[in-house]
Amino acid sequence: MNRPVDAALKARAARVIPNGMYGHQATNLLPPGFPQFFMRGQGAHLWDADGNRLLDMMCAYGPNLFGYAHAGIDAAHAARMRQGDTMTGPTALMVNLAERLTARITHADWLIFCKNGTDATTMALEVARATTGKRRVLVAFGAYHGSAPWCTPVKAGTLPEDRAHLGHYLYNDVESLAAAVAEAGGDLAAIVASPFRHDAFFDQDEPAADYARAVRAACVKAGALLIVDDVRAGFRLARDCSWARLGVQPDLSSWGKAIANGHPISFLAGSNSARAGAGQIYATGSFWFSAAPMAAALATLDLIEGSDYLERIAHLGARLRAGLDTLAQKHGFALRQTGPVQMPQILHADDWDYARGFAFAEEMLARGIYMHPWHNMFLNAAMTEADIDSVLAAADSAFPALRKRLPALVPHPGVMALLAAHSR
Amino acid sequence: MNRPVDAALKARAARVIPNGMYGHQATNLLPPGFPQFFMRGQGAHLWDADGNRLLDMMCAYGPNLFGYAHAGIDAAHAARMRQGDTMTGPTALMVNLAERLTARITHADWLIFCKNGTDATTMALEVARATTGKRRVLVAFGAYHGSAPWCTPVKAGTLPEDRAHLGHYLYNDVESLAAAVAEAGGDLAAIVASPFRHDAFFDQDEPAADYARAVRAACVKAGALLIVDDVRAGFRLARDCSWARLGVQPDLSSWGKAIANGHPISFLAGSNSARAGAGQIYATGSFWFSAAPMAAALATLDLIEGSDYLERIAHLGARLRAGLDTLAQKHGFALRQTGPVQMPQILHADDWDYARGFAFAEEMLARGIYMHPWHNMFLNAAMTEADIDSVLAAADSAFPALRKRLPALVPHPGVMALLAAHSR
Repeated sequence: MNRPVDAALKARAARVIPNGMYGHQATNLLPPGFPQFFMRGQGAHLWDADGNRLLDMMCAYGPNLFGYAHAGIDAAHAARMRQGDTMTGPTALMVNLAERLTARITHADWLIFCKNGTDATTMALEVARATTGKRRVLVAFGAYHGSAPWCTPVKAGTLPEDRAHLGHYLYNDVESLAAAVAEAGGDLAAIVASPFRHDAFFDQDEPAADYARAVRAACVKAGALLIVDDVRAGFRLARDCSWARLGVQPDLSSWGKAIANGHPISFLAGSNSARAGAGQIYATGSFWFSAAPMAAALATLDLIEGSDYLERIAHLGARLRAGLDTLAQKHGFALRQTGPVQMPQILHADDWDYARGFAFAEEMLARGIYMHPWHNMFLNAAMTEADIDSVLAAADSAFPALRKRLPALVPHPGVMALLAAHSR
Repeated sequence: MNRPVDAALKARAARVIPNGMYGHQATNLLPPGFPQFFMRGQGAHLWDADGNRLLDMMCAYGPNLFGYAHAGIDAAHAARMRQGDTMTGPTALMVNLAERLTARITHADWLIFCKNGTDATTMALEVARATTGKRRVLVAFGAYHGSAPWCTPVKAGTLPEDRAHLGHYLYNDVESLAAAVAEAGGDLAAIVASPFRHDAFFDQDEPAADYARAVRAACVKAGALLIVDDVRAGFRLARDCSWARLGVQPDLSSWGKAIANGHPISFLAGSNSARAGAGQIYATGSFWFSAAPMAAALATLDLIEGSDYLERIAHLGARLRAGLDTLAQKHGFALRQTGPVQMPQILHADDWDYARGFAFAEEMLARGIYMHPWHNMFLNAAMTEADIDSVLAAADSAFPALRKRLPALVPHPGVMALLAAHSR
């Protein structure tokens, strides 16, 4: 599909933005026809810069939980904005929101609000180190916890010292965890766990309850803190910290993305076991106390507590997963659908170079469905069964189109470079 | 003054927020009567949670450049919000804004947008290290460049490794700079400079042009990049990078706070000398591509380019400084007024323990003027001569009130603890 407006914007962007775009929203690792720029978002849909309407399965990489430009949430935001947003101090909304969230999140006794998910994960390490007086922090191999120097997946511009005292374990593997804990000796400050393994390019992996309990027990035994990084999954799997479903309570949890339905706010939540440490660190930001995103978060929380959004997106996700499996089988393909149904990872069998997945995503895009070929996707509560059925209808013709293209598929050079780098 | 609403909010906050508040907007190092919470901001004024109207000399610690709840800027923000804010990709506004800012900031050929000032300063170090392949970064003793582990002024929860390969020099001191450069040997990646020395608790210091040129020359000679951290001062001293006034162009500059008049956005700007390095690093955030703050930044830029705001706040600042000096003299006091008049630091002579400054700030607050006893303040373009005259009228009765209190002044225990820690 021709996207002349997008192409022109990309050309202009290349002059004033490094590589034309950066970070997780750069399209350089997506099929070349994918739009980089959008003009509008409403409910479950996006319009790209050329005016093509798309059902968006990425939800802004998470923030869109109740639909773009949500009338009720944005009205709360706008009303607060008219009274002042970023001021010389916070408003009462900050206390209201902290009270509401500590009541909602079982393990949380206190909160620190911030802006980026990375702010919350970085503060989690600081609080754990301040609390325990120890240094070593264990993270799962390949897990994404933000893009600060200590955790960015790309090392350029960082120093080995930025990752000092980090250890690694295999997600959902008790033996590997035990080995990493043993290696830490008496110096273990924290273990960081994702709610599930949601690494890009890989099949997702949901933790066994036994495993989650083993992580918790290892922390107790070592006098370390358990950190659940709920930035990506928070409030999409549970109306509580995601590991509450497994009966496991962390000491610290990091949140962001969906908590105000796309308005910029994140937070670190902690239990009383970490309150003194949290009171010792110093972290702040120009906009961390701004009122309007807190008003939006309160309105979002009203919906989280007062609607069946969670059951609905789970229902829609199950419908999508079953429907796609049926269609794949019908057309002689096999999909690897993993992760919670509300945050589906959809990869293709026999697709080591991702070429099938890329071509399928292109075919779906041409049919008005924005799907990601290697990153987990997200459902939102503005989606309907009709939207899911539109995905399935698109897939029903995309699979045959993919079939025709199989002999001529060429892998994406960026993906090839990434695979080569990983195999070194 | 009694503030029962504020007191009740503080008591509630103490239960759900570590120490009741954190970061630069915590009032624990201000006189005890200072309000922690606000209900409204409009133009140059704040209303605290108890409804007291205050002329706000802090401007949200910088973001308020054109007045709180600015009708034109907030209308641009709201219009964009209705079309979608945080989406699966950016809008054309991101390209427009990058083009406008690179045209406005002389040294800038490209931009990376982010959320916190700390994001921009941290990326500056990464880009410098990626560009040069070297490690050492020099910062001025005592300068604030954010609150990431590498730069937070409080070390709790951080590791010595977080500050690996940092060196220090005395601001505005060519000899000290030369020594730090020599110590770096062949490993110098960057020198970070504040636009002026705007350290809290100290008299401010404006750099000599010779000194700024020496910093620039040292970078050229060592093959290092010059970073100007314009987060706090950007667009309050110049319609360009602040060091452009001195005829010195950096390779990188970090911006935030006022660039969208309080809407959450910041950026790193760079010259072509650093473009390749900028293209190598990976940094991103959930809300870095959001459209509405970019719309607000464009509207703010219209005012920066199309109004005499800069001349007006300089005029108001000069009126304030001269008026306060006259009044201090009239009442037998001496003030230490330093820094650019738009970002005044107002300390008291013979006040090593800040007790006079604290009592003066209390007296001004009781008269409806919110002044800070140890941090630089900010003027904004919504202020009028009448506002400045209201400060002077308040001071004219605050000085005699301070005179009466002199025999009984007791220093703030938090300040005493800080001074003790620094003298160790």
